[in-house]
Amino acid sequence: MTSHTTERPRRVGGRSARVTNAVYTAVGHLMAHERPDRITIPMVAERAGVNPTSIYRRWGDVDALLKEVAVAVMAHENDVLPDVGTFTGDLTEWAELIADDIARPERSRYLRALASARDELVEVCPCWNVRGAQAARLIERAHERGEAVPTVDQVLDHIIGPLYHHAVFALPVTRSYARRLAADVLLMAQPAS
Amino acid sequence: MTSHTTERPRRVGGRSARVTNAVYTAVGHLMAHERPDRITIPMVAERAGVNPTSIYRRWGDVDALLKEVAVAVMAHENDVLPDVGTFTGDLTEWAELIADDIARPERSRYLRALASARDELVEVCPCWNVRGAQAARLIERAHERGEAVPTVDQVLDHIIGPLYHHAVFALPVTRSYARRLAADVLLMAQPAS
Repeated sequence: MTSHTTERPRRVGGRSARVTNAVYTAVGHLMAHERPDRITIPMVAERAGVNPTSIYRRWGDVDALLKEVAVAVMAHENDVLPDVGTFTGDLTEWAELIADDIARPERSRYLRALASARDELVEVCPCWNVRGAQAARLIERAHERGEAVPTVDQVLDHIIGPLYHHAVFALPVTRSYARRLAADVLLMAQPAS
Repeated sequence: MTSHTTERPRRVGGRSARVTNAVYTAVGHLMAHERPDRITIPMVAERAGVNPTSIYRRWGDVDALLKEVAVAVMAHENDVLPDVGTFTGDLTEWAELIADDIARPERSRYLRALASARDELVEVCPCWNVRGAQAARLIERAHERGEAVPTVDQVLDHIIGPLYHHAVFALPVTRSYARRLAADVLLMAQPAS
C-alpha cells in the first residue's frame, strides 16, 4: 500500500490541505510519544479530529501514512544549503546539519517508521532523492570553483547511509561523527577534469 | 527491557539450551512470515511449544527477544573470513559475503526487528562489535603484509553502515554495491608506517 505515497499525486489546498496538516500534526505528536508499531489510524483520526474512513481512503494503511509523513519531514529538511566558499566547509556543515536533525528522538522515530513501513523492495528511497539533489548542488558549486570533488553516490553512501544507519540502530549521531564521515568522503575527491 | 539481552549472562546447556533453540527457531519462522511488529510472545510460545511465562521471565518482552535473536544471527555470520592474500581481495569478498547475507528477506527482517527493538540510545551495537572484530583481523593481516590499510572505523562506517542502511530501508543490497563500497574504502587506505 505504500505505493500510494509515491504514485498518487498529492491534492493540495482547501479541505484536503487542512486534513493533511491535521493528520501530519497528529502523527508527529503520536510519534513523539508512542512506538511506531503501536500507532493506529483510529488513534491518528481521533487526535486529528478527522474521520478514520477518510484516512483509510486516502492513505490505505497506517504504514503508508507513517511513511508519507516521514518522507515529508525529510523533504523539508535543510532547504538552505551551506555555502561557505569551500567544498570541505560546505560538506562538513551539511553533514553536521543532517546529524543535528536526525539526532532528535522524534526524527529517529520517523526514520524507524520509514524503515518499518517498507515491506517491498523499492529502487529509490524518496528522502534519498532529496539528499542526492542537495549533494549534487554542493558538488556542482565546488566543481565550478575547480575543487576536487567526490561523486554524488559517494556522498550518499558514505555520509547519509552511515548517519541514517546510526539513527535507526540507536547508535550515537553526533556532529563529530558527521565531521569524521565528511573527512573520509573528502579522501575520495578527484581533481576537477 | 532490551538491556536483558546484553546484561544478563545467557545460561547454556540442558533445558535452557533446548528452550533457547526452540524459541530462536520459532522467531526465525515467524520473522519470515510476519511483520516484526505483529509478532507476539504468545505466538512465539505456541510455535516453540514453550510456556509463554518462561519467555516473559527470561526475555522480558518481545522486543528484547527479537533483538537477541537478531544479534545472535549477526554474531554467527561469516565466521570464516576471506583470505585471498591481498587486502583489496579480502575486503571486497568480505563486503560481498555480508551483502549476500543481509540481502535475504528474512535477514532484512531481522535487521528491522533489531532497529525497532532499540528504544534507548546505546553506546555499542552488538553486531557492530562482531563486524569490527572481523574488520580488525583483515586489517591486521594486511598490515603485516605491509599493505596500505584504512581504520576499523572507516570499514564499519563506510561498508557496514551503508549496507545495513540499504537493508533496513529496502534499498537494493547487491554484490556490485558491496564492491563499490569496498573500492571507496580502499581510497582511504594509508601506507603502513
